Amino acid sequence: MKSVTIQQPEKLVIEERSAPQPLPGEVRIRVTCAGICGSDVHIYRGHNPFAKYPRVIGHEFFGLIDAVGEGVEKSRIGERVVGDPVVSCGHCYPCAVGRPNVCAELQVIGVHRDGGFSEYVTLPAKNAHVVPDSIPDNEATMVEPFTIAANICSQMKPGPLDTVLIYGAGPMGLTSIQVLRGVYGVKEIIVADRIDERLSMAKANGADRVINNANSDLKTELDALGIRPTLIIDAACHPSILPEAISLASPAARIGIMGFSSEACVISQQAITSKELTIFSSRLNSNRFPLVISWMTERKIQPEKLITHQFPYTQVLDAMELFEKDQKQCCKVLLKF
Amino acid sequence: MKSVTIQQPEKLVIEERSAPQPLPGEVRIRVTCAGICGSDVHIYRGHNPFAKYPRVIGHEFFGLIDAVGEGVEKSRIGERVVGDPVVSCGHCYPCAVGRPNVCAELQVIGVHRDGGFSEYVTLPAKNAHVVPDSIPDNEATMVEPFTIAANICSQMKPGPLDTVLIYGAGPMGLTSIQVLRGVYGVKEIIVADRIDERLSMAKANGADRVINNANSDLKTELDALGIRPTLIIDAACHPSILPEAISLASPAARIGIMGFSSEACVISQQAITSKELTIFSSRLNSNRFPLVISWMTERKIQPEKLITHQFPYTQVLDAMELFEKDQKQCCKVLLKF
Repeated sequence: MKSVTIQQPEKLVIEERSAPQPLPGEVRIRVTCAGICGSDVHIYRGHNPFAKYPRVIGHEFFGLIDAVGEGVEKSRIGERVVGDPVVSCGHCYPCAVGRPNVCAELQVIGVHRDGGFSEYVTLPAKNAHVVPDSIPDNEATMVEPFTIAANICSQMKPGPLDTVLIYGAGPMGLTSIQVLRGVYGVKEIIVADRIDERLSMAKANGADRVINNANSDLKTELDALGIRPTLIIDAACHPSILPEAISLASPAARIGIMGFSSEACVISQQAITSKELTIFSSRLNSNRFPLVISWMTERKIQPEKLITHQFPYTQVLDAMELFEKDQKQCCKVLLKF
Repeated sequence: MKSVTIQQPEKLVIEERSAPQPLPGEVRIRVTCAGICGSDVHIYRGHNPFAKYPRVIGHEFFGLIDAVGEGVEKSRIGERVVGDPVVSCGHCYPCAVGRPNVCAELQVIGVHRDGGFSEYVTLPAKNAHVVPDSIPDNEATMVEPFTIAANICSQMKPGPLDTVLIYGAGPMGLTSIQVLRGVYGVKEIIVADRIDERLSMAKANGADRVINNANSDLKTELDALGIRPTLIIDAACHPSILPEAISLASPAARIGIMGFSSEACVISQQAITSKELTIFSSRLNSNRFPLVISWMTERKIQPEKLITHQFPYTQVLDAMELFEKDQKQCCKVLLKF
């Protein structure tokens, strides 16, 4: 089989490998479609603190089950499935409280173990989620990116009284907008980004108001509008955002962060406690695949709006460079196997 | 009437004032017992950012309703009540979501308006909570301090799988221990403080394990014990604690802060997000008086354990100095009117 492998940082090769055999309890997926995420690029560039090399990347993938390991029903062969990249032990404290995404022995497919930019990938049978026929292949590939939004939103419990501020109109910001609009029905969504084209996408995906904060001060803009956000999501993931979010937030607001910056972030506890803010963080997803599949089935979200490009996997380098460089036109890039 | 007034920082006077008349919707309490809190001392010393002077201090108080304003049932006269110091507008966003403690127009009795270290105090009728006869006066005076623990715990949702670390064995730490033990039934409670006598009180109030972190490194101690706390409460409120708590926390842990330090607090978002931690903050209480009164009625908590001293209000200066200086023997100090 062919596999997109990062042999070491900056060295991407389409390798010929022997197809993996599913272990007991596992299934094998014949991948037909996979999505590129920023963290794939980070592994390629050597900026992911968890990756070990060589690594077959890819954690957003769709395909058909074509083989099963011992203990898995043969009837699963042929199922159309998406793969949850979170492989967990099932018995540690985080697993016991329903948070396998921070399992003590966490193995993320495409990061800690080989991933889905490959003609075949194996994974635990419970990680392969059946997709109804009403959801086309490309949209099914978008389940994983939407689980990121589902995971942070499920924690923050948005509601109809919420005025939401989202930092960043990339894939994480846009999926969050769709979920907040289509699933949670929040009162208002404001999106801040530094690129006008991305802000246009934010509007097309359900934002009520957009602010380009490249050349303007967000606090001044929001003050002028009389807006104090009650729910803030940092989907841009720059360490300077959290302190600003704390200062912009309404009393009793919730702030959600998803960034992994190790840079020093300076905050004031008085600014947090005086408003009784809560700061949530979100990593990957904790069992959110069934939820997102149900949202797609009910058409509460529109994954097709985010897919801007498709490439055969043989052009993966072009695809990744486009994703990295063309932030104006490019949102989600799919690879076809 | 006599009122303990801070005329300006460092100037405490027992003034003769005319008794306040309850406004429409208010009741007047003839105070018989009141508790000293750190924030009373902060107002006295000029360290409370919210206080305006002159101010009658005191926000932990018990007594009998002796007069009612227009619109309040006369039958309330004679009720044994404790006063919730949180006076809120009822219509802003925080009030609408059940968080009157961070109301946009928040008035805290004893901070923003005159308080309970006085023979009489007026407050909205709904802030005066009836105390069952089974709860003695002194214990009833302890309802407010327990609402602080109730407020942070209600947000953090402790459970039987939780290994709890509490920083600080002062009144906030000790009430938290009692609540976590008696109400929430957590698995284990570890308490860190720098004073051995306080740690003894922590044990007497339900801590399973205590660590003096004056001369030892908490991380080293916990690592040696194989403990990774899943719920951490900072009841010591030093700005250096949050970064340490983030590093000690188990994946999927919750951290609660109550401090108001305006000092820079340096954190790493990677340390938070990689473990998907949640950081709660807690200020005052949001409608937790009925809850705490029910806990006392059911004997789930033992407020009497915390009361170490009593003084007539005429000795308030001695009482406040004792509270401030004798951290070894002194926990809760009551004033009798």
